[in-house]
Amino acid sequence: MSVTVVGSIAFDGVKTPFGERERMLGGAATHFALAASFFDEIRVVGPVGDDFDDAAWKTLRTRGINTDDVEHVAGGKTFFWKGVYGENLNSRETLETDLNVFETFDPKLSQAAQDADVLFLANIQPDLQYGVLQQCTKARFTALDSMDLWINIARESLEKTIKAVDCLILNDEELEQLTGKPTTYGAAQEILGWGLKAVVGKQGKYGAALYTADGVFALPAYPMTDVVDPTGAGDTFAGGFVGSIAATEGEITHDVLKRAMAYGTAIASFNVQEFGTERVERLTGDEIAARVADLQGMTAFDATPVALRG
Amino acid sequence: MSVTVVGSIAFDGVKTPFGERERMLGGAATHFALAASFFDEIRVVGPVGDDFDDAAWKTLRTRGINTDDVEHVAGGKTFFWKGVYGENLNSRETLETDLNVFETFDPKLSQAAQDADVLFLANIQPDLQYGVLQQCTKARFTALDSMDLWINIARESLEKTIKAVDCLILNDEELEQLTGKPTTYGAAQEILGWGLKAVVGKQGKYGAALYTADGVFALPAYPMTDVVDPTGAGDTFAGGFVGSIAATEGEITHDVLKRAMAYGTAIASFNVQEFGTERVERLTGDEIAARVADLQGMTAFDATPVALRG
Repeated sequence: MSVTVVGSIAFDGVKTPFGERERMLGGAATHFALAASFFDEIRVVGPVGDDFDDAAWKTLRTRGINTDDVEHVAGGKTFFWKGVYGENLNSRETLETDLNVFETFDPKLSQAAQDADVLFLANIQPDLQYGVLQQCTKARFTALDSMDLWINIARESLEKTIKAVDCLILNDEELEQLTGKPTTYGAAQEILGWGLKAVVGKQGKYGAALYTADGVFALPAYPMTDVVDPTGAGDTFAGGFVGSIAATEGEITHDVLKRAMAYGTAIASFNVQEFGTERVERLTGDEIAARVADLQGMTAFDATPVALRG
Repeated sequence: MSVTVVGSIAFDGVKTPFGERERMLGGAATHFALAASFFDEIRVVGPVGDDFDDAAWKTLRTRGINTDDVEHVAGGKTFFWKGVYGENLNSRETLETDLNVFETFDPKLSQAAQDADVLFLANIQPDLQYGVLQQCTKARFTALDSMDLWINIARESLEKTIKAVDCLILNDEELEQLTGKPTTYGAAQEILGWGLKAVVGKQGKYGAALYTADGVFALPAYPMTDVVDPTGAGDTFAGGFVGSIAATEGEITHDVLKRAMAYGTAIASFNVQEFGTERVERLTGDEIAARVADLQGMTAFDATPVALRG
């Protein structure tokens, strides 16, 4: 059993009110893989350039992540992104985006990567995502992330690709944008009508909500005194969510997905406590389990009815 | 046992993408009282003018709300607010604010209102809130709402007043503004340090979170296909929250407060489905109980551990 993730591997330059890093390992596939590595064998598919150094390879191989499908483009440079976050981390400005080897990325999966039990398509051009789906015919669970850019410039391709996966994971406002519905609940119902098993609406600092034919489940973000760097939080959430599903045998029920939300939320909460992959690299299973238990305590309540008039 | 609420009684003119009302009963005390009326005897303290007609009195007396402390200012006009909501209801613009009799409001409580078991101070100038607190010496639970205006122009009075109540209910961003902390959790911890028993951070469409010395509890908003008019949702939440606490005998524990969050959330979800008080006026206890049960289903999850590597 294994999970294949296809997406960006990058170097990030990040400045937040709490400090800065000029160049650290990042990218959607990286953050996803580090989180998912707690649950199953993970294969990363993505391109890197000549500047991808030993330290980067070492981090990308945390907890045995398999990098056989990482494509080293000779003569190329690794995707580089640089951004600065504002006060309270509610806004961020991109200062630099050098796609480099990512610009011409065309995912070619090894047989082992194609044979994955579970597939996660991180945010890349939707036709490329669709091509990967055609290669992975044995996956029992497929999920994808995307972004507003593709809704704006490649809506048709994106809708076709969404209709071909089991689960869409998107920011709640992008779900509304995608469907033209005024609420995330309404948007999710529309997308479930396209044939998906599950829709997850990411709500940033407020948490995330899950929508299936069996109902709605919402989980707050883990409460934090400080958030140091939110970069990669969404992909880390996806890694915990998809990873915990991969680790669960049998049918992928609403209950399995609910628990997966808790694992995604717990691991994402560690991601934002330090820059880049720094915290999740040295995270332990016990720390994750403790936060999952905390989340249960924070959301369970006694519903013994209060006597009501009227 | 009874609940006293002090705050605005208003006529609202509201336009949303779903329709408009030129003039309907509103105001913080009104929305609070209609929600709290399911739980206990409610006394409303607030001013109205000569234009407060029979229909308005009738609505304000829904489910036996006691209006003996509503002050009719002869020759005056009732507070009027007019606003328009944008797409998705995420933003609103105030078109008109005529304070009228509310401008010189100085709450004078009858003995019965002073003897309240529970007190809610809706958003008014904090020195006035403090004066009411001095009159209500028997209350076993006091809560207050406020707004960014008072943080900006009357911070000292507001902090003094907050320190004199048991529970602060505020928008999450206002909690951060009040304390200068970058997260709501950090802000709430700071305010609990001022001696309060509980802090509630309202998160708009995302729900609300409760902070006490015993922990954190977060509850999503009830999922809706459409939101017709969000006006009064926060005060309706407060009415369900405070009302259900008033209806609970014995110690006001973290568990009692958690359940109160569910009642506030459930009733607020009905408020936004129609304009103004229209839906909550004809709401039934069974409808509330059904949504509280739904909320429990939407937040409970099986935390049987997944086997983790590392």
